[in-house]
This record gives sequence, structure tokens and C-alpha cells, in this order.
Amino acid sequence: MYITQGLHRHLQQRPDAVAIREMGRSLTFARLGERVARLAGALKALGMASDDCIAMLSRNSQRYIEYALGVPWADCVLNPVNTRWSVAEIVFSLIDSDSRVLIVDDTFKDVGATIASQSPCIRHVIYAGDGETPEGMLNYETLLTQACPVEDARRGGDALLGIFYTGGTTGFPKGVMISHTNLAFAGLAAMTRGFFGPQAVFLHAMPMFHLADFSALYCLTVSGGTHVVLPAFSGEAALSTIISEQVTDLMLAPTMIQMMLDARQANAATSALAMGSIRHIVYGASPITPALLDRACEAFPAAGFFQGYGMTELTTGGTMLDAEYHCAEHQASGKMYSAGRAVNCVEVKIIDSEGVEVPRGTVGEIIVSGPNVMLGYWNRPQDTDQVLKNGWMHTGDGGYMDAEGFVFIVDRLKDMIVSGGENVYSAEVENALSSHPAVAQCAVIGIPSDKWGEAVHAVIVLKPENQVDTDTLIAHCRERIAGYKCPRSIEFRTAMPLSGVGKILKNELRKTFWENRTRNVG
Amino acid sequence: MYITQGLHRHLQQRPDAVAIREMGRSLTFARLGERVARLAGALKALGMASDDCIAMLSRNSQRYIEYALGVPWADCVLNPVNTRWSVAEIVFSLIDSDSRVLIVDDTFKDVGATIASQSPCIRHVIYAGDGETPEGMLNYETLLTQACPVEDARRGGDALLGIFYTGGTTGFPKGVMISHTNLAFAGLAAMTRGFFGPQAVFLHAMPMFHLADFSALYCLTVSGGTHVVLPAFSGEAALSTIISEQVTDLMLAPTMIQMMLDARQANAATSALAMGSIRHIVYGASPITPALLDRACEAFPAAGFFQGYGMTELTTGGTMLDAEYHCAEHQASGKMYSAGRAVNCVEVKIIDSEGVEVPRGTVGEIIVSGPNVMLGYWNRPQDTDQVLKNGWMHTGDGGYMDAEGFVFIVDRLKDMIVSGGENVYSAEVENALSSHPAVAQCAVIGIPSDKWGEAVHAVIVLKPENQVDTDTLIAHCRERIAGYKCPRSIEFRTAMPLSGVGKILKNELRKTFWENRTRNVG
Repeated sequence: MYITQGLHRHLQQRPDAVAIREMGRSLTFARLGERVARLAGALKALGMASDDCIAMLSRNSQRYIEYALGVPWADCVLNPVNTRWSVAEIVFSLIDSDSRVLIVDDTFKDVGATIASQSPCIRHVIYAGDGETPEGMLNYETLLTQACPVEDARRGGDALLGIFYTGGTTGFPKGVMISHTNLAFAGLAAMTRGFFGPQAVFLHAMPMFHLADFSALYCLTVSGGTHVVLPAFSGEAALSTIISEQVTDLMLAPTMIQMMLDARQANAATSALAMGSIRHIVYGASPITPALLDRACEAFPAAGFFQGYGMTELTTGGTMLDAEYHCAEHQASGKMYSAGRAVNCVEVKIIDSEGVEVPRGTVGEIIVSGPNVMLGYWNRPQDTDQVLKNGWMHTGDGGYMDAEGFVFIVDRLKDMIVSGGENVYSAEVENALSSHPAVAQCAVIGIPSDKWGEAVHAVIVLKPENQVDTDTLIAHCRERIAGYKCPRSIEFRTAMPLSGVGKILKNELRKTFWENRTRNVG
Repeated sequence: MYITQGLHRHLQQRPDAVAIREMGRSLTFARLGERVARLAGALKALGMASDDCIAMLSRNSQRYIEYALGVPWADCVLNPVNTRWSVAEIVFSLIDSDSRVLIVDDTFKDVGATIASQSPCIRHVIYAGDGETPEGMLNYETLLTQACPVEDARRGGDALLGIFYTGGTTGFPKGVMISHTNLAFAGLAAMTRGFFGPQAVFLHAMPMFHLADFSALYCLTVSGGTHVVLPAFSGEAALSTIISEQVTDLMLAPTMIQMMLDARQANAATSALAMGSIRHIVYGASPITPALLDRACEAFPAAGFFQGYGMTELTTGGTMLDAEYHCAEHQASGKMYSAGRAVNCVEVKIIDSEGVEVPRGTVGEIIVSGPNVMLGYWNRPQDTDQVLKNGWMHTGDGGYMDAEGFVFIVDRLKDMIVSGGENVYSAEVENALSSHPAVAQCAVIGIPSDKWGEAVHAVIVLKPENQVDTDTLIAHCRERIAGYKCPRSIEFRTAMPLSGVGKILKNELRKTFWENRTRNVG
């Protein structure tokens, strides 16, 4: 099994079919195959050897898909860079992975030059843009034109496909090593549910550096469905692309669904347009609210909604809440607020701190095993041993399981606040705060407290034209949760810091409070 | 990845759902899980160690499914015995695989005793029937009652799942080593087409010892669909079970479809009954005829027909002809007579005798690569090296590929006749003979000829109440194919020798001619 296998099949069976559509342009499988073989040839000509790591810092593009296929074709390793990161973080990841080549697009050509100058491992910077090639960089198209297409190395199986750096919500970036087999099983498990099939027109709305988008990319390569590239997400752009390209399958964060619906409502020309081509909407990161689901069902009348819970270490796979549980009945049963059940090829358990499975309904740590579990953290055997035990990935997330195997995520254990010796799950406090009509978004964190160790602190974004004071909000919480769980302090902001996939960056929120202090968490 | 993983999920999520139905009885996942864990415990108690081989000689049954899951649960290896074989062949396979335990049912208890007495490797014979336990055998149910359920060994990945002996049409049996990963990829590739999903009610109509049925068994275990067990195939039994159990998914040989339709037509009570519950009919071994397809479409109005081409060495996977090509348009285009295209996760090529890919339309040897390709032949490294080159399985089958990747099987290369230095593909001669209205079935083989090396010989079964002589048939052929391809001799029979899956056993036909001679084939 290797990631490029599907490409060979479609080159054989339907070379003239459209593989990729981007901004009105089309690329056939025959052209894609040739460009991928030439990119691999160019990497070889630049002296890249087996296992060398090739980084890409770019918005979504056709060339990103060529990179995803061309690097393993050349027997090299992917390092797709998180575009939201700081220069320091990116430099760290390039040096840590010993990346030899950095590919940048127009958006990131300037910062790319800075990054390369600080990363002695980088031998070549390739400019994959459409303007003039910056000094000191090689031109992507020129390289492809001059290169000889090479035979596919057919890199696959347990070999390293890529190093996917995790970052964002919990501490320092670690390189997650994902194999071809990891990605294949995660993808095939999704495909057994009918996503991303041969008739699919898939919109790359998530950033391509994210492994979730990579797993969709793999499925499309297997099935031969059509990639539609959205260079950067906005509600308007997604909306108009869905309509013009008749997109059928989507993968999103709930915040992105919201942004599309807001854009639709704001525009008189589109507010009545139903996006009837959409069949599957896979969303992750958090449950959908009933209000958002109602709006989404009206806008996407033929869509099934699927919530996925996973993480990079699981090649994004874990549990999934199927379309049939997105309804009033399961809003009432509560299952609509779960993360669903273990997906095909995966097992999930909830354990206590001794590693023993807990009874149903009891909160513990979520652990996952299956062929989707990462090989480990790059160059961090100790970190790997801490989370990978007997093939079970210890997610660090807290949750419980009901009698039918539905998993309810209570909290990231790392987000748990220990205040006065009591455990406070921030999700519980956030649920209490969210139920206040003036609150648009909220995040609850632990901040240093000499008295309590940690104190519960809430950050709030209010709805436009709404006002509420701290005391009212705390009183609102007191009616709903135990006193020790209620915020001791509240801070109002106009916006939250968000990750590339729309998660609130709690680390950012914590930073100012914890500067020069150590939080005692895993 | 391990074959029992799906069982754990369904034990967790829906323990009270029905896993297996057999002759009106039902078994839940909870009971199945317990029985599987107890069977593994019983094998351990009998002294079976990791990698020990456990054979089963039985008609289809619930206990066969328990065997398929319980043996890997105990970290042992499967050896499902072909029930059509002679005592000598079975004894050979037991000794070759060093099988330690033989499980037999009521049908095979007597022959099982004979076989065990000739197989010194067999330590225990387990009687898995419902009558009195024969002397010298252990009782399956007693063993399960007395055993302690054990933890799943979670045997998986590249570990050996089973040794599947191939036999039938081409010479001496060889043990094909199949890993858990082999079976998983073959199964998931099928599931990505929508077969064997969570709503499926699958009829085990093929014999369970056959790897094709095993791959369906794996899919059902992943999806949690329902197994319906047919102890032994007959047209009547299949028909009534489909109707009573509302079967949705079927895997068959075309001869078996024919037998069902004949049974339906013969019975006034059923002749008008449409089997509307059927959604997927996967058939293999040979293309369907337009006449049979017409009858089948009327009887199974909601069914899609899918033709698979594969072999044990490919975990049965290879190419598939999709439902949409079973229609008048593709009868006219000829694609309906192809074996379809490479399935997901698999690559197929046609090569010449030098190993070079031939142009489209040119006949050559079909080779296949993918994660479904066997580990090799058990204890036969030389045989393995002959067919497995750089991960490509050399099937020994002749065929060509059209511009869209459809594969047309011309012949088993081993069935090719070399007559007077000319290659004669028996399929071509058979097609000419079949077009005569009096011919029901025919098989063309090479027989020894002092003059030509081999001479083309035809074996014919006529339609009831039809008559035709040798000269007329040869003249019929001369109008259609080259003179050197026409039969030199014709033999009329009332029936053909058939394999367990309905293939004509050409080796049987050849035997009398080739006794004490050697055919010069691979």
C-alpha cells in the first residue's frame, strides 16, 4: 500500500478525467501524473535522497496536492508546515525534522526567505508562486519543465509518509510520525461510510497542512473523485465555490459552517440559494449546536452531517457521530452532543489513572487503538512512551462512554483546572457560561492562585450589542454548577485567538498569566 | 489491525444485536464474543501455542464463524479445509501445514476420523456436531462449557492469519499464506463500494473454507452486518433463505445464480416471487451471460451485479466489473464481458514474457500488486519466487486491457494449448462452440499428440433433448476461428466435473489423457 497507488489506477483507467479544479482551471489525471513524476525528478536532481524531509509553507493549491503525491513518489518525507505559526515555531520544526527543501507560495515567499535564512538545514527554497521568483529561490515551474519524470519509488506500508507537527492548544510542537498504512486505514475507514467516493467533488476548505485534509486527499486519490481547491477559507469564497463547482463533500470546523451561513444570510443574492449539491459534511473539533444545525440543514438540504473526534496522533481517526444522530430525537437523547462511536478499524476505551477501564458513564481518559495510531513522535522516544502504551494512544482527553458506546468528551485533561484540590473540567464551566443569552464565545482556563493553586478564570466574547457584567455571569453559573467550579474572575474580549482549524487557542489565553511559571500538567 | 477488532467494537456498542442467524436460530454479539473467547480458551487448554495451525472440515455453520474468529483470538493460525477434496489431498494439507487440531461437523465426522488417523500431526479431533460424539473425539460444546474465556491475543498486522490451500483447476495444492493486513485491505476495498455494510444481511452461500467467503466474513465483522448461514448450497435452500431472512448481500458463482433461478422457475409457488431485498450480488469465476443476467434482473429487481476477478493469492481481490456495466449498452460495447477494472488499493498490469508492459489490446500475463497480495506459499520459497516478483503477483492468467483499463481474461495461461507451435487459447475455442444452439457447456483442453505436441480436444454437455454430431460442431467452429484452433476431437458427457465454486475442473478432464505424461506448463 502506498499513497500514490490510486493515482496509478486513475492514470490507467481515466487519464483524461479531471483530477483537480482550482479557480476555474482544470488538471487531468494524466497531467497531474506527469507533474508529480517531474516534481519527484526535480527533487532527485536537487540531490534529495530517500527519507529526506521536504517542507511546504503555502496556502491551499493544486501544487500542494502535487507536493503531497510527488514527495513520496521521490521516496522522501512530507513536512507540511502550519501556516499560522510564528517564524520561531516554523524554524524549530524545520530544524527538528532536518528538512532539506522548503517550498513556498506567493503568500509566504517573504516569511519563507526569513525562515530559510534561520534554518541551516534548508538547502533549497522553491518558489511555487505565479509572480517573479525571489532572489535565492528556485522556480517550481522551471524545475518541473527541466526535470526528467522519474519512476514512482512506491514508498509505502509502514514507511514514514510525513512528519506532521502538532501545535496550537497544548504546549510545544511535536512531530507526529504518520506512515502510509496509518493514512490508508484512516482513509478507508472513512470511505466505508460513503465519504469521498468516485462521484465526490470535494472542497479543500480546511488548510491542506492539516492531517484531516490529508486524509481526505488520500481518499480522493483512491476513489478518483475531484479535488476542488479553495486557496484560503472565507464564508463567501466557500459559498460561491460550492455553488459554482457543485461540491458534494466537505470537511469543516463548526465555526467554518457558521461563517458560510453568515455569509449566505448577509448577501441578498445568495440568502435563498440552497447548496443542494452537498451530500456529506464532516465537521470536527466540537459538537454542533442545535441552532447551527437547524440553519445548516436549511442551507444544505441534501447533506448528512458527521462529527469526527480525533487528533493528529490518530491520523485524525477516532470516533464519529453519524448523520442519523443529528436530529431532534437525539438532541433530546443527548447523543447529538456526543462525539459518536469508535469508527471502523478503531477501538476506543475510557480508563482511570491506573489504566483500568471504567464503568460506562464514568469520566476517565480516552484511549484509542487501531492501525491509524501514529508511529510515534519524531526524535522523542520518551514523549512517545508516555502516550503510546501497548499500541493504545492515550489522548489526554477526558470523557465518558454511554451504554451504546457513544463517547462524550468532557474535557482535554490538560485543560482540567485543579483548584483547591478539586478537579474542574473547563467544558462544564463553559457550558454554564454559554447558556447565558449574551455570551457568544467563552473559554475557561486555570490561572495561578496563591490560595487555590489554580483559580477558574473565564474569557468571554459577547454577542454584538449585548452587555452583561461579571457578577451577573457568576451568579448565572452558581445556579447551574458547584460554587468551586464558578469563575473567580472574568475577562471580556472582542475576539478569541483561533487555531488554523478554528479551535480556541487556550495556550495563548494562558500565556500572560503563566509567564515564568510552570503548570503542573502532562 | 486484527480480524477480531470489529467484534470488540460491536461487543462495546451493540452487544444485544443479532450477529448470526442460522436455520431460525439467532446469536447476539455478546454470545458470539463469549463463545469465541471460550473457544480460544479451549484451544489454549488443549496446549495450543502461538502460531499453531488449527484445521476445520465442515459445512457452513455458526461454529465456522466462531472458528474464524476464535483461532486468531488464541494467537493461532487457520487452515480451513476444502470439503471437496479427497482424503489424500486433505491429509497432505494437514501434514504440510503441521495442523494440530482438526474440527469436524456431522457431515465430515466419519471421513474426519479417517483423515486424522493418517495425519500424525493432529493431536485432537473436535466434533462440532449436534449428535453423539464419536469415539476418540472431543465435543465442541463441552470444551466451550468447560473452558475459561481468555483475553484476545489481538493477533494482527502482517502476522499469519491462515493457510488457505489452493487446488482445483491447476495441479497440486499449495498453502497460500494470508496475513491479517491482506484480508483487511481486500475487505475494506470491497466495503468502499458499499458492500457488506452495517445494514447488510449477508447470505453465506459460498463454502466458508473459500477465502472469498472469508473476506465477506471480515467485512461483516467490521460493519456489524448480519451473517445468515446456509449450511450447504442448493437453489431451493438459497431461494427460501433469501426470502425468509430478507437477505441483502450475496456472493456467488454464476452457476449458483443459475441454480437459484432454475429452482424459482420450477416451483409454482415461488416462480413469481421477486427477491426484492437483495441489493448486491457479487459473482466471480466467469462473466455472466446476457440471458442469465436478464433472468437475474427480473428475479432480483433491486440488485446491483458486480463481477469479481481474483484468486486466493490475491486474497481474492483483483478487478471488479461494476453494476453500471451490466446493461445492454455495455453488452454492445463488450465491457459486460470483461472482468472490470483494478479495485481500490490494487494495481493491475498486462506484461509480456520479458516482464514488459504490453500495449492496450495485446494479450499477455495479468500481474497484480497491492496490500492484498499473499505473504507467499507456505514452505515453498521457490514457488513463491516464481510468482511473486517485486511485490507483483504473476497470476498465470492471460488477458488484455482496453483503453479504459478494463481487463478481458482470455485464458488461464496454464490452460493454453500449444499445438503445432501455435498458441491456442481454450476460451476462444469454447466461445465458438458455445455459440452453437445445442451446446449447454463446453471445455477445451490440450491432449497429447505425437504429431502436434498437443491437440485441441473439446468436452461437450448438450442441452436436454438436443443432438449434434462432431463434424457439425467442428464445421461450426471453422466458420468462426482459424483451422488450427478447431477441435481435432470431441467428447460428449452428461455433466462436467465442477469445483466447490462451480468452475469446470479441467485437470479432471485432462487426467485420463495425461496419465504418466508431463505437460510442459508452469
